[in-house]
Amino acid sequence: MTPTIAIVGAGAIGCYYGGRLAQHGCPVHFLFRSGYEAAKQRGLIVQSPDGDFTIAPGQLNVHRNPSQMPKADLVIVALKTTANDQFQPLIAPLLKDSTIILTLQNGLGNEDRLAELFGPQRIMGGLAFVCVNRMDDGTIRHLDHGQIKLGEFCGSPLQRTRDIAQLFCDSRVPCQVLDSLAYGRWEKLVWNVPFNGLGAVLDKSTDQIINSPSGLALVRRLMLEVMQTAAAAGITLPPDLPERKINDTKTMGAYRTSMQLDRRHNRPLETDAIVGKTLAAARQTAVATPYIQMLYDMLALI
Amino acid sequence: MTPTIAIVGAGAIGCYYGGRLAQHGCPVHFLFRSGYEAAKQRGLIVQSPDGDFTIAPGQLNVHRNPSQMPKADLVIVALKTTANDQFQPLIAPLLKDSTIILTLQNGLGNEDRLAELFGPQRIMGGLAFVCVNRMDDGTIRHLDHGQIKLGEFCGSPLQRTRDIAQLFCDSRVPCQVLDSLAYGRWEKLVWNVPFNGLGAVLDKSTDQIINSPSGLALVRRLMLEVMQTAAAAGITLPPDLPERKINDTKTMGAYRTSMQLDRRHNRPLETDAIVGKTLAAARQTAVATPYIQMLYDMLALI
Repeated sequence: MTPTIAIVGAGAIGCYYGGRLAQHGCPVHFLFRSGYEAAKQRGLIVQSPDGDFTIAPGQLNVHRNPSQMPKADLVIVALKTTANDQFQPLIAPLLKDSTIILTLQNGLGNEDRLAELFGPQRIMGGLAFVCVNRMDDGTIRHLDHGQIKLGEFCGSPLQRTRDIAQLFCDSRVPCQVLDSLAYGRWEKLVWNVPFNGLGAVLDKSTDQIINSPSGLALVRRLMLEVMQTAAAAGITLPPDLPERKINDTKTMGAYRTSMQLDRRHNRPLETDAIVGKTLAAARQTAVATPYIQMLYDMLALI
Repeated sequence: MTPTIAIVGAGAIGCYYGGRLAQHGCPVHFLFRSGYEAAKQRGLIVQSPDGDFTIAPGQLNVHRNPSQMPKADLVIVALKTTANDQFQPLIAPLLKDSTIILTLQNGLGNEDRLAELFGPQRIMGGLAFVCVNRMDDGTIRHLDHGQIKLGEFCGSPLQRTRDIAQLFCDSRVPCQVLDSLAYGRWEKLVWNVPFNGLGAVLDKSTDQIINSPSGLALVRRLMLEVMQTAAAAGITLPPDLPERKINDTKTMGAYRTSMQLDRRHNRPLETDAIVGKTLAAARQTAVATPYIQMLYDMLALI
C-alpha cells in the first residue's frame, strides 16, 4: 500500500523528508506556513550530498489550508515546537479514524500533547538526526546525516512501526525502530540541552563550546543533570553516554545548533520543548538541576 | 599636611578621583598605561554633574614610567584587576616606608595580593560607587554617584583612615569610613556578581535583567549564593540586602556594568576578581554555589 502523507509544517525538515517520500513515489501533501508561493512556482528543490533532486511544480502538492487537503494515512508533524498551539486547527482536518500521526519535533511533550488532542493510540514519535536548512529562495539544502529513529508513543513497536520505518528506508532515509521512544528522546536531550541551550545563550558553535575547558565543564554538568532526571523518570542511560556524545561532537566541526541559529535570526526559541520540559520532569521527580534551571532562566531572559 | 599622591592606573576611575584631589590642591602624579599623549597635550578634562573642571597641561603631572615619579605618601591603585600581575613593577618604585597603598579596584583579593608584596600594615581598600567613562579623546565623563567607602585591610579604622576620608570629602568626593572592609567588599559583591556577571554573559543592562521575571530569579539566586558564601567566611549580611539592592537597581535605569562594557569592547573581563575569587571563597568554606560556578564557566567561555 502507498499511504497518503501530509506534512504539517513544511520547513527545512518537513520539506526534506516529505521530498524524499514524494521522490519515492508516495502522494505527499505539504502544508506550508511560509514559503508557499516559492514552492508553488519553483517546486521543491533539494540539494543533498546523497544526490540532488527536484519535485516539479506540477507534481508538488502544496497547500496553505488544511481543510483543502485530503485526509491522510500518515501525518508527519514538522512544526517548530513554538507553534504547538496550532496542533488542533492544522491537524484535525487531516484525520480519519486510521490516521497515524508521527511527530519529528524536538524535545519532550509533543507526543503527549498530540495524544491529548487526537488520542494516544495513533501517535508515534521520531528523532530526526539531520543538518538541513531552507534557503531564502526556498531551496532545501541538506548538509549532513538524515537518519530517523522512530517509535510508538504507547507500548512496543508494532507492524505499522516497522512499515513506516521501511517506507523511509525505501525513500533513502535511514530509519531505525526504537524499542522505547522515551529512551530515545532522553538520549537525544543529553546532547540537545547543553548544546542547544549554551549555543543560544552564548552564541557559540559546538566546537567553540567543547574546545574550552570551561565549556566542556558546563556541558558535562548539564549532561549529568539530564541523565539524573532521565533516571528519576525511569530511563537509565549508559554512564558513558556523555563522553560518547562529546566525542561524537568533536567530529561535527563548527556546528551551529538550531537554537543558536534561531537566536541569531531573532526567531522564537524551542526553549520549552528542549529545556523547559526537561526541567519540569526534574521538578516532578525532585531531582536537583541548578544548571538546567539557570540555563532555562537565561534562555527566557534573552 | 598635603600628601603627595600617585595614581597607578590612570583610567576613568583613576583620572576622576585623582583629578578631584588635584583640583583640591594636592600634588597628584598620574601613571598612565594608555592615554598618556592625550593627557600630556590636553591636560585632564572632567565633565561632571557636580561641575566640570580641567587640570591644564602645565599643571598636570603625567608619567609613563614609575621610576621617574616621586615617592608618594599615598598610592591609589586604580588598575583593572586584570593587570594585577603588574603590581610589583608599577608600585614598588613609588614606595617609602610610610607610604599608604589604597586600592579602589573591584572584587576580592586585591588587598591580599598587595599585602603579600608590600606588607599588610600599609594597605587600605576602598569601594568606589561611581559611573564614569573615559572617552576616546581622553575626556573623563563622570555620569553619576562618586562616593567612596574605605577601610583598613588590617583591623579597625585608624586616624589615617579618617584623614584620607576627610581628604576625599574636602575634594568633593563623599567618603565614608568602613568599620570592616571585608563587610563592604562582600556587600558590594552581592550586587556585582549578578549584574556584572549576567551583564557580560548575556550582554544585558541592569534594567533588562531585573525587568524580566527570569532575570530577577537569576539575580536573587546568585545574590543568595554570595550571601551564603559571605556568611561562611564570617561576614553576616542583613537578610533584606538582596531586596534592597534590587530596589536600588530599579532607580539606575538602563545601566551597563563595567563587565558588560568590557565585553562589548573586547577588553579583558574582571571575571577573576569579581566572580572567580567569590567562587574560591565558596570552595574554601564548602558552600554549594552552582549558579556562581556556572556563571564563572560561562564567563570563561565567552
